[in-house]
Amino acid sequence: MSKGVTPKSENFSKWYTDIITKAELADYGPVKGTMIIRPYGYQIWDNIKNIFDKEFKKTGHVNAYFPLFIPKSFLNKEAEHVEGFAKECAIVTHSRLKINDEGSLAPDPDSKLEEEVIVRPTSETVIWSMYKKWINSHRDLPILINQWANVVRWEMRTRLFLRTSEFLWQEGHTAHKTEEEAVDETLKILNIYQDVVENYMGIPLTIGKKSETEKFAGAVDTYTIEAMMGDKKALQAGTSHYLGQNFSKAFDVKFQDNDNTEKFVYATSWGVSTRLIGALIMVHGDDKGLRLPPNIAPIQVVIVPIYKNEEDLKNIKKFIDPLLKHLSENNKSFYLDDRENMSPGFKFNEWEMKGVPLRVEIGLRDLNNEVITISRRDNNEKNAVPINESEKTILDTLDDIQSNLFNQSLKFKTQNTHVVDNYEDFKKVVSNGGFIKCGWDGTKETEAIIKKETNATIRCIPLEQKINNLKCVYSKKSAKYEVIFAKAY
Amino acid sequence: MSKGVTPKSENFSKWYTDIITKAELADYGPVKGTMIIRPYGYQIWDNIKNIFDKEFKKTGHVNAYFPLFIPKSFLNKEAEHVEGFAKECAIVTHSRLKINDEGSLAPDPDSKLEEEVIVRPTSETVIWSMYKKWINSHRDLPILINQWANVVRWEMRTRLFLRTSEFLWQEGHTAHKTEEEAVDETLKILNIYQDVVENYMGIPLTIGKKSETEKFAGAVDTYTIEAMMGDKKALQAGTSHYLGQNFSKAFDVKFQDNDNTEKFVYATSWGVSTRLIGALIMVHGDDKGLRLPPNIAPIQVVIVPIYKNEEDLKNIKKFIDPLLKHLSENNKSFYLDDRENMSPGFKFNEWEMKGVPLRVEIGLRDLNNEVITISRRDNNEKNAVPINESEKTILDTLDDIQSNLFNQSLKFKTQNTHVVDNYEDFKKVVSNGGFIKCGWDGTKETEAIIKKETNATIRCIPLEQKINNLKCVYSKKSAKYEVIFAKAY
Repeated sequence: MSKGVTPKSENFSKWYTDIITKAELADYGPVKGTMIIRPYGYQIWDNIKNIFDKEFKKTGHVNAYFPLFIPKSFLNKEAEHVEGFAKECAIVTHSRLKINDEGSLAPDPDSKLEEEVIVRPTSETVIWSMYKKWINSHRDLPILINQWANVVRWEMRTRLFLRTSEFLWQEGHTAHKTEEEAVDETLKILNIYQDVVENYMGIPLTIGKKSETEKFAGAVDTYTIEAMMGDKKALQAGTSHYLGQNFSKAFDVKFQDNDNTEKFVYATSWGVSTRLIGALIMVHGDDKGLRLPPNIAPIQVVIVPIYKNEEDLKNIKKFIDPLLKHLSENNKSFYLDDRENMSPGFKFNEWEMKGVPLRVEIGLRDLNNEVITISRRDNNEKNAVPINESEKTILDTLDDIQSNLFNQSLKFKTQNTHVVDNYEDFKKVVSNGGFIKCGWDGTKETEAIIKKETNATIRCIPLEQKINNLKCVYSKKSAKYEVIFAKAY
Repeated sequence: MSKGVTPKSENFSKWYTDIITKAELADYGPVKGTMIIRPYGYQIWDNIKNIFDKEFKKTGHVNAYFPLFIPKSFLNKEAEHVEGFAKECAIVTHSRLKINDEGSLAPDPDSKLEEEVIVRPTSETVIWSMYKKWINSHRDLPILINQWANVVRWEMRTRLFLRTSEFLWQEGHTAHKTEEEAVDETLKILNIYQDVVENYMGIPLTIGKKSETEKFAGAVDTYTIEAMMGDKKALQAGTSHYLGQNFSKAFDVKFQDNDNTEKFVYATSWGVSTRLIGALIMVHGDDKGLRLPPNIAPIQVVIVPIYKNEEDLKNIKKFIDPLLKHLSENNKSFYLDDRENMSPGFKFNEWEMKGVPLRVEIGLRDLNNEVITISRRDNNEKNAVPINESEKTILDTLDDIQSNLFNQSLKFKTQNTHVVDNYEDFKKVVSNGGFIKCGWDGTKETEAIIKKETNATIRCIPLEQKINNLKCVYSKKSAKYEVIFAKAY
């Protein structure tokens, strides 16, 4: 814990991994590409999860649980869907191990499954096979179900939190009577995603629609929240899909409407994952480690008493007891770090690495002066505060840290977003990194050439469009959309 | 929903399935033996989960997440463990599907994995492979980790909630310096299990140790909580294992103690699962459906206004508004069922099927008389209560329902637990059903014969033993233990 991380400016990728290791967020598992989320990382996930869960419930959604295993044939029912997922899926073929003739443990040939089973990469198919059973009449709609689950995509090049064979997520799957209602749902969820990621995680977003090339395999429209990481690359932080009738047709899910006609159901699906923790690290982290926004930090305030003996510690504890009670009453999470045989400096480093937003230090002299020292993780400011003002100061400072982290990232994002109107500039800007705002003629060809030549992809077509007289940055034809290009994770 | 369930006395198994279907708790998935937990069932699970999670955290445990996938070779490291799980596991052998020469979607032979991967049946092996990495010194101990996860055991004969290929559970995995500390942990968890299952789920338990034959594959000692179902069969509702050094030796996990010697770590593991929902149904359910103890019910009070027009409904709502506020303030969950075009009778049946502990009815006449009608789900009692007494009455009644459900089940369990001292009686009692308390000579042979001849197994060796002069019910030799025999799920 005492050793720092590789400087961010020196090697961003190594810096990222160092933080994950030293803040004890996660670790690789024994099977290639799998991840262990360690307790501190899991607490962050739990906090994020609880906020989303509350928002989903407020908007009428309920949780359920669908099976991990999907019959192979299901994947094949929606043409684009199989195309999107067949190349990277875990396939279960046997149900028993036995000792073979060479004396080693191997799949028992007699246990070969009649039909192979896929470990869910996403649950549209298995859920729509059930919706067929549950939906008959318009009275059965809407269905607004979410599930918190693990999913598997067999990735070759993995990176903790960003791209692992297995990850945790939520996936919402809703069924509606009309296109309008389903589109509304898609956008309502996009709003929730934006609210939670910006206001709790402090990550500013660019919101928009995906291009045909980049959209979800099986969607009519994919909406996305895109964030800019500390290395100026984009990260797709969550997506909300309007699925139209693609899955209801694939699984033959119809309902009888009030007018007694049978209609195919309209659908949405949407998800955010543990990838959000990767975003947190890459947006807020610095060379001392993580910096966590108070609204999602497992520990918001760490209190480090600086003492020589038991008597001192007792006095310090008595001194700050009213403060701790006040923090509790205001639902602030704190940790009094009175661990023995550890220097204050060691403790400071540890909590800075773990990104605790605010640190309180109290020594014997402070006791006499009736002050405490407050250190902010976001800007390193350190102030002595009279104990009788400390309660208010701490609560206010936490609020200030929350907005300051957002504002710092927003400034960084704004500074690194460039409006570009010609391909030469485009290539230069791409190589320096950042988001590019420019016109696009709307063709797959242009999109493909730009990707091939620069590695930049269309992150999104922002919801608000200004395309008067705008030209495509590549073809110079009239722009169909104004879009955001960037290299991405 | 209007049709009832098969009577419990007529066909217990059909009754059980009917309740699950009609209360919309769960459904079978498309892959044989998999389960969908529907929203109402999932809310029950979430409530149970939250109570356990709070208790685990109170006792110093933290959550983490370990991978779904385990290398095949890991299973083989602990001899009994592989014996216990190799026969029923899902084996992943390929990572890509492609269209084969016959034009159908099949595992791509080129994607065959070098080493097959097992879908976790339980996580001891993968977790101990990580503990090896995380544990060096006595300062790293204890580790008190829990995870909420899905696990897979490829079952041939499945039954919803009780035995499915995939189920949800929590699994705790702790690491300790000494045997004493690990045994203490095992029993501490057993206490938490007993507390939650008895005091929240209202299910009386018999607590004890498993026999060598029945214990967990890899444990030194398995402790169990056993419940009696409505058909007098036993259900193992949770287990807590003292693992000794079996897994630390298998994975070579040592720590340097204060005395500078290297020692193998002591371990525990423990789990409860969605099977508990099966227990809830089979312990409390009746011919009208579920009966849920208030402490875990998703809806504790349902309010059914009986009205003819909008004006009536408005008046009723005004009338009960203070009551609803009071329920909210006391953290009671309620649902005001003002759905239109549904008869009160239909609604009553639905909420009885779903086991809501308490129903409030209010008609126009009640409005004038300033009373409401309260119906208890546990004993069908129905009383008119003056509105100004209703707040207190409802809270008291909920408490009373909670203890009454427990007492009803305790009475049933006590009435169907028989002390037996000879094998003839044993066989008679077994065929009538119930728990048998008797002496056992402690040999595997006796245990095996009894199981073969009667289908009854040793459910547990109760913690308190009275074996003075006790003889084995089968061999007539001196009893080594007093045990509980029963047929079990």
